[in-house]
Amino acid sequence: MAKGAFQTLPGFRDFRPEDCAVRNYLFRNFREVARRYGFVEYETPIVESTELYLKKTGGELGTQLFRFEDQGGRDVTLRPEVTASLGRLLIDSQRAYQKPMRWFEIGQCFRYEAPQAGRTREFYQFNVDLIGEANPAADAELIALTIELMRELGFKQGDFVIRLSDRRYWQDFASSKGLTEDQAEELLTIVDKLERDKDGASGPKLERLGLSLSEVEAAINSPSELSDNLNSVLANLEARDMRNEVEIDLSIVRGLAYYTGVVFEVFDAKKKKRAVAGGGRYDTLISALSDGKIDLPAVGFAIGDVVIRNLIEETPHALEKMKAALTAQSACDVFLVVADPDQQTKALTLATQLRAAGIAVSYSLKPAKFNKQFKAAEQAKASLALVIGNEFPEVSLKILATREEVKLIADDTIVETISQHLKK
Amino acid sequence: MAKGAFQTLPGFRDFRPEDCAVRNYLFRNFREVARRYGFVEYETPIVESTELYLKKTGGELGTQLFRFEDQGGRDVTLRPEVTASLGRLLIDSQRAYQKPMRWFEIGQCFRYEAPQAGRTREFYQFNVDLIGEANPAADAELIALTIELMRELGFKQGDFVIRLSDRRYWQDFASSKGLTEDQAEELLTIVDKLERDKDGASGPKLERLGLSLSEVEAAINSPSELSDNLNSVLANLEARDMRNEVEIDLSIVRGLAYYTGVVFEVFDAKKKKRAVAGGGRYDTLISALSDGKIDLPAVGFAIGDVVIRNLIEETPHALEKMKAALTAQSACDVFLVVADPDQQTKALTLATQLRAAGIAVSYSLKPAKFNKQFKAAEQAKASLALVIGNEFPEVSLKILATREEVKLIADDTIVETISQHLKK
Repeated sequence: MAKGAFQTLPGFRDFRPEDCAVRNYLFRNFREVARRYGFVEYETPIVESTELYLKKTGGELGTQLFRFEDQGGRDVTLRPEVTASLGRLLIDSQRAYQKPMRWFEIGQCFRYEAPQAGRTREFYQFNVDLIGEANPAADAELIALTIELMRELGFKQGDFVIRLSDRRYWQDFASSKGLTEDQAEELLTIVDKLERDKDGASGPKLERLGLSLSEVEAAINSPSELSDNLNSVLANLEARDMRNEVEIDLSIVRGLAYYTGVVFEVFDAKKKKRAVAGGGRYDTLISALSDGKIDLPAVGFAIGDVVIRNLIEETPHALEKMKAALTAQSACDVFLVVADPDQQTKALTLATQLRAAGIAVSYSLKPAKFNKQFKAAEQAKASLALVIGNEFPEVSLKILATREEVKLIADDTIVETISQHLKK
Repeated sequence: MAKGAFQTLPGFRDFRPEDCAVRNYLFRNFREVARRYGFVEYETPIVESTELYLKKTGGELGTQLFRFEDQGGRDVTLRPEVTASLGRLLIDSQRAYQKPMRWFEIGQCFRYEAPQAGRTREFYQFNVDLIGEANPAADAELIALTIELMRELGFKQGDFVIRLSDRRYWQDFASSKGLTEDQAEELLTIVDKLERDKDGASGPKLERLGLSLSEVEAAINSPSELSDNLNSVLANLEARDMRNEVEIDLSIVRGLAYYTGVVFEVFDAKKKKRAVAGGGRYDTLISALSDGKIDLPAVGFAIGDVVIRNLIEETPHALEKMKAALTAQSACDVFLVVADPDQQTKALTLATQLRAAGIAVSYSLKPAKFNKQFKAAEQAKASLALVIGNEFPEVSLKILATREEVKLIADDTIVETISQHLKK
């Protein structure tokens, strides 16, 4: 083997500190935007019974489950998504919470599919769900959160677009054509793949349902009228000055079988036209998972870390914003330089006082030459170097950016003095 | 079934918002203390090749692996701990980083064992590792970080004690008694279990090694002299005013086979005397994992979320500190009360402005009576209620804690005015 004898499994990622910092930048933005919208965080297990995914969520996920038998003979799965777990949790606990519930989650999901560029077997997902409210104002609230997240990540109008649709539009269309429920389901699958259909397979499939490609394309491109829900969502977003980020696109139906109403995707508006994130209304999932015992309308949204990181890195102003945020987070405020080895004890005492005040402190763990310690301070990207020598308690503080030097006395006021220098 | 048809798997936990808040409180403290000590965060995958754990880490873990075969026929394991993955990662990447490396990680680990009180099959672990420094100042730095973490979590002197030991003491003891390497390994296993040995099995086991229980107990209780490393660690902690939290206890050897020198455990000093966390020096693990190609001394520490949460909940002043921190984090700063339904659009515009300024805003998603909206504001634990009525742009701000009311005009200054009220 080229590298070490041990490697990560295919499709799994190590996060070295520079990658982990990017991940945490995304997480901070997820949490910050969720907080502004009044959402609280929850989490569910990474391993669940497989039947949770087979029974109700349906769609493409069934074939990509990271599924195995545990030591107790259970058929279990590394979760492919979080909404089914949320449904399970809500059935047992929703009674304890005021409706509507504003809940979010950040955690890993897994899919067993052939690893390729941008297709990992694990990824982090930010899940936001608004539970217990059927009013389309809830759909609009979630779409607004999505737009605010994109703005916080440094994207501007024109970088992305929210493509908005309504599954009920297609249910109504199917009814008007006399299709059965199964046929309506199949129609949704064909519409979902229409945009990516390069070999013209959709036409014959539609004909088998008694429909023509041209009438379906007309239904997408020239809708007779929008549903009240879509009109209501558009007016709501207009009031937030977010209407320009949204366009109606009835070709969007979302892959997962559990969506029942308004659905939307965040699209890369530039060259690649790929879906970055998406969500929609799922008013029957909780009822289905609870065998009809609990009926809670809900609307949810999810975004993965891999695609959004790629989009940030391809978008200069978003990348610049991220880099600025990462640079602002120095791992080291003060590096202690011990000029006289006899004063090592004093350095430890000072380190303890500074750290107790919340200041990030580092220093050489073994005796080293003065210059080498200064080099280590620069490598640690410290803001300040505090030099402790044989004149102690007289010490000197060096501002590393400007090379300016200040003499200080290591008395009760030194922590406060150094804090002031860090705020500059 | 008593509850919903779907349940979590045995030993796995849901984190409802109130539990997730506790988890995040722990994580915030982990990250904050790591930052003060100059550590940067990394992460490795949750699933790894099983051979990574079988080859070198040894000890008790081998029998508790959450192990399965994936769809590609690979023998894989949900990681029981993170140090082996860190070793794997270091072999490929350590060249890129200045030594010593101060790295930490927070993530889930899994063990397949019989679920019982306090023994979950998954738990979060905070891992802190100092890599590339053999000087005992590194061991002391990590123990100091551990003590600072306990202090930050609200524990006081007397709540916990760091029990400090050195595996080399036992290696020297074994050599002086003429034991082979395997016999020395067995001696460590017996010493590790001595404190919990209730049926007197240790005596006969020691006799088989040609040792008596009394001479081993004497070696624990009346050591002839401490190693230079232990004396150095103690002096170092003394300079940090942390000596009182530490006691020498040579019966501590830690279960994992990869430790090579100083080892330590955080002990609950009160009734239960249980180990809360632990760590130690592992100078040969990276060499072993890399077949001798890379030789990096290292010292690490890990603490799990389950045991530390229990200890906080049993310790009144630590629990009080946690509760105060959780209460300070309101999910809602401002709740918008729309007194006149015609002004809903104005409410959305205001919500957008306030949120863009980082203020957490909530409101009723469907038209509701004035009193019901106020009740929702209180249930959301909002700090302020902003009432928007038919006199708009005149609005009124109600401070919910004091019931004080202020008239405002919704102009360009309102966001700043509300921010000021929130800072009070």
